[in-house]
Amino acid sequence: MLYFLDIFGTAIFAITGSLAARRKHLDIFGVIVLGLATAVGGGTFRDIILGVEVFWVGDNIYIIVAALASILTFLLVRIWDRLSNVLVVFDSFGLAVFTIVGLTKALMLGYSDVVAVTMGIMTGVLGGMIRDILSGQVPLVLRREIYATASFAGALFFVLADGFVGNYNLRMVLAMLIILTVRLLAIKYNLALPRIGRPDRNDE
Amino acid sequence: MLYFLDIFGTAIFAITGSLAARRKHLDIFGVIVLGLATAVGGGTFRDIILGVEVFWVGDNIYIIVAALASILTFLLVRIWDRLSNVLVVFDSFGLAVFTIVGLTKALMLGYSDVVAVTMGIMTGVLGGMIRDILSGQVPLVLRREIYATASFAGALFFVLADGFVGNYNLRMVLAMLIILTVRLLAIKYNLALPRIGRPDRNDE
Amino acid sequence: MLYFLDIFGTAIFAITGSLAARRKHLDIFGVIVLGLATAVGGGTFRDIILGVEVFWVGDNIYIIVAALASILTFLLVRIWDRLSNVLVVFDSFGLAVFTIVGLTKALMLGYSDVVAVTMGIMTGVLGGMIRDILSGQVPLVLRREIYATASFAGALFFVLADGFVGNYNLRMVLAMLIILTVRLLAIKYNLALPRIGRPDRNDE
Repeated sequence: MLYFLDIFGTAIFAITGSLAARRKHLDIFGVIVLGLATAVGGGTFRDIILGVEVFWVGDNIYIIVAALASILTFLLVRIWDRLSNVLVVFDSFGLAVFTIVGLTKALMLGYSDVVAVTMGIMTGVLGGMIRDILSGQVPLVLRREIYATASFAGALFFVLADGFVGNYNLRMVLAMLIILTVRLLAIKYNLALPRIGRPDRNDE
Repeated sequence: MLYFLDIFGTAIFAITGSLAARRKHLDIFGVIVLGLATAVGGGTFRDIILGVEVFWVGDNIYIIVAALASILTFLLVRIWDRLSNVLVVFDSFGLAVFTIVGLTKALMLGYSDVVAVTMGIMTGVLGGMIRDILSGQVPLVLRREIYATASFAGALFFVLADGFVGNYNLRMVLAMLIILTVRLLAIKYNLALPRIGRPDRNDE
Repeated sequence: MLYFLDIFGTAIFAITGSLAARRKHLDIFGVIVLGLATAVGGGTFRDIILGVEVFWVGDNIYIIVAALASILTFLLVRIWDRLSNVLVVFDSFGLAVFTIVGLTKALMLGYSDVVAVTMGIMTGVLGGMIRDILSGQVPLVLRREIYATASFAGALFFVLADGFVGNYNLRMVLAMLIILTVRLLAIKYNLALPRIGRPDRNDE
């Protein structure tokens, strides 16, 4: 089931990448590049750092799904304007799935909790960071509301609940629900963490 | 022969990286860093993702050629202004060579066509993307005329022609010619693909 | 001893990353991400390219130190304003240590001098480049005074002195002193290398 969620998350992140392409008025190829980089960027760095085969090199389905989702977004871009509320929920869902996929992959390879939590967050947020850098923005994760923090909360729960939630699948589902809930609450109530320095006037 | 073309492509991309350094008025070391990153960036990520030894770690000639080309560009920068037409042809040539080098490397390692095409395009365009990010621009490949599309066309031909062009070397040469032709025609006739969204006023 | 210097350098670079977060008024999580990326970014790419286990995956202390240094910087940010002179010395110190750590690691793995020098410089400067890209700046290493050049001078000395400074530890200390001295002299006397092109007006 995690496999299907993972592919669904890949499609979602490809869509957010493709939509970011609107800011810069890119052509179809630029849209595909941004969609692919957003969808597989986080997992690619996770696998490289963990020293295992990069997931989309062994299983073409990820690249194909991400490319198709990007092309569909390019063709149907007007539809997304009406679906922006749905998209925010989908994006939070992708964040939850990718965090837990990254975390459990590192744990199964025998790495420590500190490394696994780092890998979970990296898998969840790095794709979006690459998307923002490529489209010439300060990464959203670095300046907006609670985003990576939601990923961190779920990853931390998963690791700490090791002792008292014995069922592995249940623990995964609970951790994903925590990420989803924290993220959606943060959006609904416009929550943010304390900040450093004074606001930059160039900041939107 | 592909080896010599590859080294020639490395020198070409180092020159385009060094010339990009003019935008930001960099010193000699910045010029070398930009030249090196442009010349070996794409192949470095290709080899990391394919899980093989990074090419310039095993064969110093690539770093030495890229560094020398950058230093020469720094010293002879005025000459390039008169040669800009030649440079565009050279750059298209580098794109063609790097795409086919990346593609055939992945195929020889036994990877699927989808992965090989992705690797070919990545090898061809990623160096230029790194160059543009480092010099503070939205990557050219994401916003100008047909560039990655030319790389894609040649890579696709190489894979699809497997059945009816039996000779491997002939197939490589034809694929490179397709990339060169598509790219040079796109420049000459100012061709572009359809775009997403409205133009950004900050865009040049 | 190099191990303790390395951890000290990690803390220093995490602090410079966290302080860069002021420019963009980031929240605590953004501060930690920038701190971590600055502190471990260079060494991460070095290990990936050398094909060995990434250092912080095998030894959690690096991530923990970098995260703690970032959190402390966030809490005590006012103190750093009074310590900016100390910080410049610390940063030069980190550059010296990271360069020599990267260089000797590549040599011990049996790589050539050209690769080892490249790895030394990459370990020293890449973290700062990632910090600047993430916070939306042209990398400092590409546009300011002698920085990477200091790293290069020390690395070159280490390799060339192979014949006439037999003691490995002495050679390391001398190379680090050269980097420190070149860098601090460059700051004190505002030295810079010749540049390419005309100054960009957007450049500070």
